[in-house]
Amino acid sequence: MTTLKPVTVYDIAREANVSVATVSRVLNNTAPVKKSTREKIVELINKYQFQPNALARSLSKKVTGMIGVILPDITNPFFPEVLAGLEQEARSKGYTFFLCDTVSTNGDSKEQYERESQYLNILLEKQVDGIVIIGGRINLARPTKEHVNEVIEVSKRVPTVLINGSLPGHPMNRVFADEREGAELATQHLIDLGHRDIAFAGGYRGMSNTLQRIQGYVRTMERNGLAVRKEWLLDGGFSVESGKRFMNQLLQMEERPTAIFCANDLVAIGVMKVAYKAGLQVPQDLSLIGFDDIPYAANSIPELTTVSLKGYDVGRGAADMLHQLITKSKASKNTRVRPELIIRETTTPPR
Amino acid sequence: MTTLKPVTVYDIAREANVSVATVSRVLNNTAPVKKSTREKIVELINKYQFQPNALARSLSKKVTGMIGVILPDITNPFFPEVLAGLEQEARSKGYTFFLCDTVSTNGDSKEQYERESQYLNILLEKQVDGIVIIGGRINLARPTKEHVNEVIEVSKRVPTVLINGSLPGHPMNRVFADEREGAELATQHLIDLGHRDIAFAGGYRGMSNTLQRIQGYVRTMERNGLAVRKEWLLDGGFSVESGKRFMNQLLQMEERPTAIFCANDLVAIGVMKVAYKAGLQVPQDLSLIGFDDIPYAANSIPELTTVSLKGYDVGRGAADMLHQLITKSKASKNTRVRPELIIRETTTPPR
Repeated sequence: MTTLKPVTVYDIAREANVSVATVSRVLNNTAPVKKSTREKIVELINKYQFQPNALARSLSKKVTGMIGVILPDITNPFFPEVLAGLEQEARSKGYTFFLCDTVSTNGDSKEQYERESQYLNILLEKQVDGIVIIGGRINLARPTKEHVNEVIEVSKRVPTVLINGSLPGHPMNRVFADEREGAELATQHLIDLGHRDIAFAGGYRGMSNTLQRIQGYVRTMERNGLAVRKEWLLDGGFSVESGKRFMNQLLQMEERPTAIFCANDLVAIGVMKVAYKAGLQVPQDLSLIGFDDIPYAANSIPELTTVSLKGYDVGRGAADMLHQLITKSKASKNTRVRPELIIRETTTPPR
Repeated sequence: MTTLKPVTVYDIAREANVSVATVSRVLNNTAPVKKSTREKIVELINKYQFQPNALARSLSKKVTGMIGVILPDITNPFFPEVLAGLEQEARSKGYTFFLCDTVSTNGDSKEQYERESQYLNILLEKQVDGIVIIGGRINLARPTKEHVNEVIEVSKRVPTVLINGSLPGHPMNRVFADEREGAELATQHLIDLGHRDIAFAGGYRGMSNTLQRIQGYVRTMERNGLAVRKEWLLDGGFSVESGKRFMNQLLQMEERPTAIFCANDLVAIGVMKVAYKAGLQVPQDLSLIGFDDIPYAANSIPELTTVSLKGYDVGRGAADMLHQLITKSKASKNTRVRPELIIRETTTPPR
C-alpha cells in the first residue's frame, strides 16, 4: 500500500487557481460555481484521490479559505506594503481576505480596542481559518490583562499570527521587523556623517515600537560617547502634523540639533515642511532620517533617507506562518526580519 | 391604541453605542456579550417595546449589521479618505465593515475582476446587510455583459451602492463626485492664469473616470477657443511612476506645454519629480495641477494645487444611501457631490 500525500483543500485550490472558498462551494454544494471551474476542481479531487476522510475533515472543520486581518489604520502608508506581501503570499495559497480597520475616527484609542474585540468576535463567528493582527493593542507597552487574555483565547480557537507586536509575557506566533536594530542603523548613519547633536522626534512612549526605537537611538548615542538631551527627545505622534509641531518646538530652542532621527517618514515630512518654511535647507542646514520607507519617501524633494522595515517581507512571512499553523505544518514561533538603511538625499555631514 | 415608532435593531445599536452585530448576539444568544452591555441592550429593547414581530423579522432577515466594501487598491491614497467618511457615518449607525481589496499584485486586471466576483459571492454567503463597490469594473467605459449582470443580480438580493462609478445603461444606486466638473475647474484655473499651452497627463482611456476628466478638459479648452494637441494628451497610468514617464515624454518634444493638468495627484508628483531633476522650476517654468487632493498634496514642496473630489463627503453619502436602502427608507437613486478647486503653490501665470 502506498502512502498517499496528504493533499489539502489548499493544494486543490492552488492548482485549480481558485480560492479555497470556491473549492469549499463545490465540496459543500452551497452555491453555484461556473461549470468549467467545477469540473477542474472535481478532476483534481480525483487526480489526487482526495480522501473522503480528508474531505470529511475539511467539512467538519469548516475550512473557509478566509483570513481576517485586523489592522489599526489603513491610511497609514506603512500598512499597505505589509498587506501587499501578505496578500501576494496568501492568495497564491488560495486564501481570501477580510480587512478589519479598527481606526477610531475621533482618535479615541479606547474605542479602537473595543473595535478590535468586536472584530475578533465576528471573525470567530464567521469561522475564518486564521487571523492576523497588526498594530493596536499588541503595540502597547502595557496592555490590560483583559486585552491580552482576549487575544490568547482567540489564538486557542483559531490560528493567529501577530505582526510587529507582542503580548508581554505571553509567547505568541509572530513575525516582526527588528525596530531596535533599525534605530541603531539610523543613529549610527548620522554619527558616521559627523553629527553629534542628534534629536529624536515622534511616536508615543506608551507604545512598544516607540520604546524600541528610542532604545536603539539611546544605546547607539551612548556607545559612541554622545549625550542624549532630554529636551531633544520629542514624542506625541506619528503624523505629518505632529512632525510640524516637533520642528516648531525645536525652532524655538536656543540650541538646535544638526540632525533629527524621526520616528517615521510621516513625521520626517512634517519636519521637512516646517524647516523649509523657516528658511532652513535640508540636508545642508539640517539632516533628516525617517523610518518605514513608505512609497512617498522616494518621491519627496529632496528624497528622504530612511530605514526600511521590509513591510513586504514581514507580510509574506506572516502569511507563510499562518498557512503552516492552519495546515498543522511545523511553524517557527518567531520570525525576525532585519531592517535596511536606505540612504537618499536628506542626510549629509554637518556644516 | 398608539402607533409604535418602528424601532429597528439599528436604532437600538446606535443608542446603546454598540454594533448591530452585538445587538444581534444578544437577540440570538449566539455568543457571549459583556454583562453591562447586555443589560443596556435589554433595557433599550424594553424601553422601546421593541416588538416580537420586529424581533422575528430581524432574525428571519438575519440582520448582521455588516457591510462589505469592495475596493480596487487600498494603496491608492484616495480611497482611505472615502473609507473614512463611509466608516464614520456607518459606524454611527451601528454597522461593522469588511474591506475586500481586489488589487491584483501583478497588475492583471482580469484577475482583479475575478476577485470582485469572488468577493461578491462570499459577501452574499456571509449575509452582509449591504455592499458598497468602489472602482474596478464599475469604472470601465465598456464592462462586459457578464460583469454588469453579476452586479445587478447581487443588487437584487442585497442593498448595493456604487461609489464614483456606474453600469452603463443600468441605473443603480450611486454616489459620485462630478469628475467632469472637476476637470473643468482645473482647466479653467490654468486658462485664467494666462496659460494657452496646456497638456493633460494620466489615467486610462478604457476607464470612464479618465474619459470624464478628458471631456471636461477638452470642453473647457474649446469653450475658450484653445487648441487641444493630440501629442499633449498622454495616458497610461495613475501612478507616480507613470507621471515620471509622461514628463520624460514631454521633455523630449520640441514644443512643450507651460502647464499640465494631471489626471491625479500621484501623476503630478511624478511629473514634478522629473521636472525638478531636469532643472525646471515648478511653478515658474511649469504649472502643475493635480486631481483628488490626497493627504500628501498639502505636504509636498511646493504644495500641490489640485481638485478635491470630496472623498469624505462621497463616502458619507454612500453610507447614508445604503442605510436608507437597508432600512427601506426613501433613498434617492443618485447623489452627486460637487468638486472643489484647491489652489496651492504649483500654479502661476506663464513666463
